[in-house]
Amino acid sequence: MLTNKRNVRIVWGDCDPAGIVFYPRYFEMFDASTTALFERALGMTKYEFVKAYDTVGYPMVDTRARFLLPTRYGDDVVIETEITEIKRSSFSLRHRLMKDGELAVEGFETRVWVGRDPADPDRIKAKPLPDAIVAKLKAG
Amino acid sequence: MLTNKRNVRIVWGDCDPAGIVFYPRYFEMFDASTTALFERALGMTKYEFVKAYDTVGYPMVDTRARFLLPTRYGDDVVIETEITEIKRSSFSLRHRLMKDGELAVEGFETRVWVGRDPADPDRIKAKPLPDAIVAKLKAG
Amino acid sequence: MLTNKRNVRIVWGDCDPAGIVFYPRYFEMFDASTTALFERALGMTKYEFVKAYDTVGYPMVDTRARFLLPTRYGDDVVIETEITEIKRSSFSLRHRLMKDGELAVEGFETRVWVGRDPADPDRIKAKPLPDAIVAKLKAG
Amino acid sequence: MLTNKRNVRIVWGDCDPAGIVFYPRYFEMFDASTTALFERALGMTKYEFVKAYDTVGYPMVDTRARFLLPTRYGDDVVIETEITEIKRSSFSLRHRLMKDGELAVEGFETRVWVGRDPADPDRIKAKPLPDAIVAKLKAG
Repeated sequence: MLTNKRNVRIVWGDCDPAGIVFYPRYFEMFDASTTALFERALGMTKYEFVKAYDTVGYPMVDTRARFLLPTRYGDDVVIETEITEIKRSSFSLRHRLMKDGELAVEGFETRVWVGRDPADPDRIKAKPLPDAIVAKLKAG
Repeated sequence: MLTNKRNVRIVWGDCDPAGIVFYPRYFEMFDASTTALFERALGMTKYEFVKAYDTVGYPMVDTRARFLLPTRYGDDVVIETEITEIKRSSFSLRHRLMKDGELAVEGFETRVWVGRDPADPDRIKAKPLPDAIVAKLKAG
Repeated sequence: MLTNKRNVRIVWGDCDPAGIVFYPRYFEMFDASTTALFERALGMTKYEFVKAYDTVGYPMVDTRARFLLPTRYGDDVVIETEITEIKRSSFSLRHRLMKDGELAVEGFETRVWVGRDPADPDRIKAKPLPDAIVAKLKAG
Repeated sequence: MLTNKRNVRIVWGDCDPAGIVFYPRYFEMFDASTTALFERALGMTKYEFVKAYDTVGYPMVDTRARFLLPTRYGDDVVIETEITEIKRSSFSLRHRLMKDGELAVEGFETRVWVGRDPADPDRIKAKPLPDAIVAKLKAG
């Protein structure tokens, strides 16, 4: 399965009055990491592949994170992301945010591939992951 | 155990290009809901109780959320929060974000009560939840 | 011209390691205040009026803010918003964020009313503010 | 005067239902750019120089931005930052966010160098910019 790694600098605006990252920010980082993995797999930006595959994206269905070590502004961390499971229209990933080689935050997520609901364009509806995407995510 | 309920208007800035709430925002809402519950229990703002109890807050240790229904700008939702467990220096809560009476997002969290580490004021360290706070959280 | 006032509780997640509001958050508050004023004028949520008037919203063209007093988590502030000018397809507003009766932050903004560009639906294009909206904004 | 340039990838979570960057996010980007310039000038992270110079940071006093071209997720932009003026305890910068070589957003800001107020550590108070910092910012 595909994996991806990216470097992130923690900034002042990510942190709260305790001086450490405000935890919802980690989910923002993980969301960008999931996108980075897809962009690498497909060789397109998300803007491009959303159009190419006529999707609205991959909203979160279930996510969990464990926070082991705090990080703070000025820290350089590495986020390692891997696909852990692919089903018909959903898929799961794991993120490992490393600080100085130690696991600081671990994230798990299950997302669903969606399109506009043909019956009501205001709504979104799960649809099967295209075979071409599955093949590229599995190629690793 | 104590519970709290608050109304939240979903706004444009909470939403992403799919037109629905960008999921890290739900964690921001839940964080504010946890604070609202503590403020109600203690009869003080967080700014006041952080000082009164010489703490740095209650960083997240583990959190999970399930997303059942999307919400979008203009939606008025209700977030119901309850303490589900209290241990020596950690505690757990559950949030239920309701839209039109239906469960849209469910959040679970375990946090730890921390202070500055006496050995290194740059670090934070778990410390026991004050008895007075435990009593008020249990009073419900 | 129309004015609107709303109460905002400053929360932990709005604040930075200095313990005060991270200033981009004030712009988020002002954006919500502009929407609140439109919603009051039109008697519809933004989601509804975006559809009713076939617009994509009112992106910012120019904004400025002056920061006079810091605010921090636990503070209850009032944001007073008023339309200061209406042109053919743009309009200006002023926000005054008050803390304990004193002006803490003052914001100025000019926005443009836009729709999808008929020549390229990927682009947005200024279009005239509907007369019905202008009348309601002026009614005050 | 010192200048700095950094590359930023616009991500999904920066964007709103119109599919373009939610403008408060540009201020977050500019804040990180100001920090990047200081870090380059001083050869330390913000976490380090806040300690080294016993400051609480440089809160915003006045900021303005003009939005000329929209940017959206998947866009790679460059933010060029320069110090434009240095006074006793305040300083000004200009940010130019470029997309495909064109100016997309221009930001202006005046900040003040602050420390804890000796009379009330809950408050922050302007203090003179250290000479060593001024020299490094001017060295450019």
